[in-house]
Amino acid sequence: MTDFEKQISFIMELDKIKKITRQTYLSDGSRKENDAEHSWHLALMAFVLADYANEPIDVLKTMKMVLLHDVIEIDAGDTYAYDTEGNKTKRERELKAADRIFGLLPEAQQKEYRGLWDEFEAMETPESKFANMLDKVQPLFLNDASGGISWEEHGVKKSQVLKRDERVHEGSERIWEYAKSLIEKNAKYGKLIDE
Amino acid sequence: MTDFEKQISFIMELDKIKKITRQTYLSDGSRKENDAEHSWHLALMAFVLADYANEPIDVLKTMKMVLLHDVIEIDAGDTYAYDTEGNKTKRERELKAADRIFGLLPEAQQKEYRGLWDEFEAMETPESKFANMLDKVQPLFLNDASGGISWEEHGVKKSQVLKRDERVHEGSERIWEYAKSLIEKNAKYGKLIDE
Repeated sequence: MTDFEKQISFIMELDKIKKITRQTYLSDGSRKENDAEHSWHLALMAFVLADYANEPIDVLKTMKMVLLHDVIEIDAGDTYAYDTEGNKTKRERELKAADRIFGLLPEAQQKEYRGLWDEFEAMETPESKFANMLDKVQPLFLNDASGGISWEEHGVKKSQVLKRDERVHEGSERIWEYAKSLIEKNAKYGKLIDE
Repeated sequence: MTDFEKQISFIMELDKIKKITRQTYLSDGSRKENDAEHSWHLALMAFVLADYANEPIDVLKTMKMVLLHDVIEIDAGDTYAYDTEGNKTKRERELKAADRIFGLLPEAQQKEYRGLWDEFEAMETPESKFANMLDKVQPLFLNDASGGISWEEHGVKKSQVLKRDERVHEGSERIWEYAKSLIEKNAKYGKLIDE
């Protein structure tokens, strides 16, 4: 296979993430969103909100990272944030998927994109902290807009959201402040269980 | 409204493009894709295929451009490529939409993103030529993969595709060469009407 053929096969393989459904509803509550839509939204937020990063970020790198971060779910599936059992085997399933999917690419891109995915997972750099922050707050914004349908469906507690989002502030203190206000509001109105 | 509030309202308004259905089917033919999924795919292609641009491109700028290029369809709707009547009023509807939607943002971003949209439409710069090329070949790749369902549904002719894609080569000669081979193949197998 030529490099061009490898790149096209990667691009066409990734079409499958349009069929991976998440637990978050669109803002109007009409249906759940999928991984491609979610990733599109994160990439948009990455450049619109870049100035709120705690540390300066490379916006291009951050956008590539969020556009690729969920492709491993083609093989590994979407594991709901509050699914304790599923989260035990998640890491292993995702590593195997990363090997196969990034392995479709020519050597140099394979290395670069796999590196971005590993970096996202490790969450140690300014870009990966910002990208992980976006990945956490985007569903929060949608849950708030849709009236908390997904939280109610799964009986989610405020304490679970706070636990899940405990590192959001590392990406952006300003955005975390806003996210916290939404969590408080939704707990107040009973959309999140406040024990 | 603070700048932050304006940015959040823009990001939430754009959630609506997940509900704008296009005429192109997913590669497995299971359903039509929407504008958010399409834009995600273009942004991915923008960086994976950047080296095939005829002239060097600013990848970040190109990605912003493709992520934003369809947001005006929130108001203006998706006009099918071969809808002659709809295409007569398209420009006017889209300009009005651009005023309203980019108008949600703080001044500086309003100017930047509206500028990117205008640049995409004018198709004079390396980035906008590459972005327009992607916008044309991505549905072609999906149509080919799905067995030409959308072309058959609309009785599309090979000559119409060639006319619509006549400027694709300005973005990338290499990708146009591949796209042409797909057009020929689909005409040969009767998926595109070859008069």
